[in-house]
Amino acid sequence: MKVLVINCGSSSLKYQLFDMEDESVLAKGLVERIGNKGSNLTQKVSGRENYVVERPLKDHKDAIKLVVDTLTDKNNGVIGNMSEISAVGHRVVHGGEKYAESVLIDDEVMKAMEECIKLAPLHNPPNIIGIKACQALMPNVPMVAVFDTSFHQTMSEEAYMYALPYEFYQKFKIRRYGFHGTSHKYVSKVAAEMLGKKAEDLKMITCHLGNGGSITAVKNGKSIDTSMGFTPLEGIVMGTRCGNIDPAILTYLINEEGYTTEELDNILNKKSGLLGLSGESSDFRDINAGEQKGNERCKLALKVYIYKIKQFIGSYVASMNGLDCLVFTAGIGENAYEIRERVCENMEYLGIKIDKEKNRVRGVAVDFTAEGSRVKVLAIPTDEELMIARDTVSLI
Amino acid sequence: MKVLVINCGSSSLKYQLFDMEDESVLAKGLVERIGNKGSNLTQKVSGRENYVVERPLKDHKDAIKLVVDTLTDKNNGVIGNMSEISAVGHRVVHGGEKYAESVLIDDEVMKAMEECIKLAPLHNPPNIIGIKACQALMPNVPMVAVFDTSFHQTMSEEAYMYALPYEFYQKFKIRRYGFHGTSHKYVSKVAAEMLGKKAEDLKMITCHLGNGGSITAVKNGKSIDTSMGFTPLEGIVMGTRCGNIDPAILTYLINEEGYTTEELDNILNKKSGLLGLSGESSDFRDINAGEQKGNERCKLALKVYIYKIKQFIGSYVASMNGLDCLVFTAGIGENAYEIRERVCENMEYLGIKIDKEKNRVRGVAVDFTAEGSRVKVLAIPTDEELMIARDTVSLI
Repeated sequence: MKVLVINCGSSSLKYQLFDMEDESVLAKGLVERIGNKGSNLTQKVSGRENYVVERPLKDHKDAIKLVVDTLTDKNNGVIGNMSEISAVGHRVVHGGEKYAESVLIDDEVMKAMEECIKLAPLHNPPNIIGIKACQALMPNVPMVAVFDTSFHQTMSEEAYMYALPYEFYQKFKIRRYGFHGTSHKYVSKVAAEMLGKKAEDLKMITCHLGNGGSITAVKNGKSIDTSMGFTPLEGIVMGTRCGNIDPAILTYLINEEGYTTEELDNILNKKSGLLGLSGESSDFRDINAGEQKGNERCKLALKVYIYKIKQFIGSYVASMNGLDCLVFTAGIGENAYEIRERVCENMEYLGIKIDKEKNRVRGVAVDFTAEGSRVKVLAIPTDEELMIARDTVSLI
Repeated sequence: MKVLVINCGSSSLKYQLFDMEDESVLAKGLVERIGNKGSNLTQKVSGRENYVVERPLKDHKDAIKLVVDTLTDKNNGVIGNMSEISAVGHRVVHGGEKYAESVLIDDEVMKAMEECIKLAPLHNPPNIIGIKACQALMPNVPMVAVFDTSFHQTMSEEAYMYALPYEFYQKFKIRRYGFHGTSHKYVSKVAAEMLGKKAEDLKMITCHLGNGGSITAVKNGKSIDTSMGFTPLEGIVMGTRCGNIDPAILTYLINEEGYTTEELDNILNKKSGLLGLSGESSDFRDINAGEQKGNERCKLALKVYIYKIKQFIGSYVASMNGLDCLVFTAGIGENAYEIRERVCENMEYLGIKIDKEKNRVRGVAVDFTAEGSRVKVLAIPTDEELMIARDTVSLI
């Protein structure tokens, strides 16, 4: 069975075609500049050179058409015709409180996703557009929505409620939702497999550290708390996002500088985090290089970054009353062994001992627990697309 | 030696007169409605009935004059004349980055306190007015400023820096300051004494739980992190304050409801916390009673309140890589043994075991550690005034 996975942004679209017999990736690609000049598609197939198509794409329907054309292209494609695609799995950012699981898309689901636009105004609209474009082109193919939020719907009220006037929850649905759910779910499952245990028997903390980042407490296979909240701004320090700050800083800045909410959102989401502290870059590799060269601000940025991760780990260990396994994933978590090492330093109180030599690898799954450690410590490359494909198969 | 301690609010003033030979309180009192109709003073002296004076008080100088008149009153006073007061200790909320210790007040200190008005616009002005009024009335008596922030000036940059554009720190001094420092300092010292150890040898977490509340990590006698930040809004859930929330909620609410910054500050500071969640009251005792009666919202408010405290404890244990002693203080911390018990539940991973019977006391210093606990657990009534008096004596 072949499953197409689609992740639709406002002017771009990522896709992967899986053969679910062996979960292999037949092809993956990226469409860019949809609706703009110079729109193009790049497709990667293992063992072949990248295949690039430049074609005017006026909307997402055009883009999906190009994806299908490319996948079925005589010379550069990987399947004979569109009917080989048994199902399409769509990444959808926000499922609100309605979806604790992935779901087969029907009219009711479309309506629910539209109702969530207010909660994810930048993300849900392109996700919905992508689904509609696929439906138009492949009317008889089942479509599945896999939400970034759904894994976290198992949180209890004490974890998801903010101490705000209760009316804000009723009227605006202001609560902690959490994001990166597909990634946290995927790596927590893989971690259990690597340890030869059931996820149901483990207290786990999964650290998704990319340009965005979130940390999740996974107890008995379920998310019980996560660091991103109502939006992906909350939580740890990120590439350009501030994470947790004193909320009074916002009104202070508005009063002092006369910022509009748009300007302030932009500052907190795009000019803060590692970039704001370092003044150099939002990319961990640049900051790391800067620190090596003795740049004090880069050093500060990394110190704050690591400190906050350690504190979130500590708080989630308290939420679970213990820890069996700590997992690192995503761009920084998979590749930056320096960060993994520093996060695990001075954590003897939890019985964490790591094997520094084993840890010195990038981009591969590794168990770098040292002998005698009470907590297993793993790095696991995340694979949200595979998780989406698996959920899709299980629903059709 | 007799020391007068003054805590000056915008229209009220609290005072205590200590005999520092034995640290006994000779008298304490409260002046209310300064500058308003019906201004009055109530003085308490151990073993006597409360003494109430009603007198028009046009400003803080009038109020200080009344305090001195009352303390030296032939029938109701406790000292013969003003010259018996050797020094005055003033509580000052904000010392900025300048004062890591209490300080003898001179012109330079006055100037520094005035520079901090921007950081504490509601608190520093009445503190300064109170000092000036005392200086006018007692020109030859040494005055000492004891700052709420100074105990926390030992925090390292990774603890006090927010991941915001660095310019905000340079231009506006936006950083974590922390408050309740005098209380955290006092109880951490008393805790070490109770344990027969040196504070320098202990990893401690002090939970100041009152209507406002903050939690501090005290390592080797020094504050290394604390939950209140740039303002007293950040951190745990409080009576009417929200504590940590996703900062994006503020811009969302401004966009949706058109709130002014003043309205929003008011909501987050005065209508949130236990009050916002419960819809009933900001007073822990009411919420507790509500929960007993089966009120679901009161139950929710307490669950969230306790959950966040546990998470802060967990994060600070991570910051210190261990914990020797957990201390509860202030209104709720000293009196609500139910809260202490619930905070300490399911904390076996730290080796916390409490003696529930010993814990069942209110308003007294108690070590309720159970046999075999790896962490000592104490409740200690705070005494910020005594701490101010001690600091005052040590500086003159």
